[in-house]
Amino acid sequence: MVHYKLTYFASRGFAEASRQIFKLAGVEFEDIRIIHGDGTWDELKSKTPFGQIPVLSVDGFEIPQSSAILRYLARKYGFVGQTPEEEAWVDAIVDQFKDFIEAFRQYATANRLNKPAEEIDRVKTEIAIPARDAYFKILNTILERSKSGFLVGNNVTFADLVVVDNLVTLEKNGFLNKGEQPKLDALRQKIHNLPKLKEWIATRPDTQY
Amino acid sequence: MVHYKLTYFASRGFAEASRQIFKLAGVEFEDIRIIHGDGTWDELKSKTPFGQIPVLSVDGFEIPQSSAILRYLARKYGFVGQTPEEEAWVDAIVDQFKDFIEAFRQYATANRLNKPAEEIDRVKTEIAIPARDAYFKILNTILERSKSGFLVGNNVTFADLVVVDNLVTLEKNGFLNKGEQPKLDALRQKIHNLPKLKEWIATRPDTQY
Repeated sequence: MVHYKLTYFASRGFAEASRQIFKLAGVEFEDIRIIHGDGTWDELKSKTPFGQIPVLSVDGFEIPQSSAILRYLARKYGFVGQTPEEEAWVDAIVDQFKDFIEAFRQYATANRLNKPAEEIDRVKTEIAIPARDAYFKILNTILERSKSGFLVGNNVTFADLVVVDNLVTLEKNGFLNKGEQPKLDALRQKIHNLPKLKEWIATRPDTQY
Repeated sequence: MVHYKLTYFASRGFAEASRQIFKLAGVEFEDIRIIHGDGTWDELKSKTPFGQIPVLSVDGFEIPQSSAILRYLARKYGFVGQTPEEEAWVDAIVDQFKDFIEAFRQYATANRLNKPAEEIDRVKTEIAIPARDAYFKILNTILERSKSGFLVGNNVTFADLVVVDNLVTLEKNGFLNKGEQPKLDALRQKIHNLPKLKEWIATRPDTQY
């Protein structure tokens, strides 16, 4: 049996969708969660392929970069879509999510660096909120056209997992009012009600991010 | 025969690697190049799936997002690597490139917005240059271990195309002195000497980005 070890921080972030693929596929994995500030990461960083986590170890063979890990697992266990065209749209949605997160990260960074309140406010109003609105608009358009309720095709793909887990984070942090986004909330419910995910979500560590 | 139409601006940027896959595969495509500021893009923008280009049309079926397009074509024509593990590393390198470009874009944006010289300088020194150095270090480590001289496995993949085209841009814009980066320059030469690419590079429109 392949030994999988997924190393990330003690949060959902860029690893949760991969964890969920393991759960959906019913495949065992080591879920290594590094605590910020206890020194473990400082020691590990230089040993990772790109100086970053998540890293997936597959019998010792290491794969860096969250989307690469996710796509590797999704392809192996059948969560990439059913045709090359579906695969392309799954990829496109995940890339769009990453572009959105990049804009949002500027707001997180301004906060972390304790920038003046007006600078934080400016980044929020001029960058983060418009990026979120544009991203939500794209998701809503996709869901309006979806016959299955999934983002792509008739089955759950890793695009659904990535998007939904991030919706949880946006809601937990005051950037999503689910009453205002019924389609996005319906997607969240659909994904979180998949029996194997429902069980995982009820028992996993609850984290802010 | 499938009718491919690749729409992008009149630059290499996020479309060139896909153009190169068509050339390497010997597949015809419509190479639509939009001129900035002539009004075409303003009109087209709202008709694209995500309000962005590149967009690839495959017999009218549209795929947005540069990496999704690239992976779709690369998978179809055999430039994704030979095993699932090679595919994962190709993906990881392209994602790492995108993270690097995102950091670099902050510098481009500061320039475009005509920020004060000291602010531009700060972004260059504190963000762009360190991001480039970290990225070059990763590429050098990968190339040191490569037996073939390609980034992944024994054949050209879309990771080589993406990385090399960006090296051209970095050099053209004063961010790469090829004498200081012999391994990166050897990769560039190796890729640009692939006969079908050599021919394309000699005849394609020469652009700064």
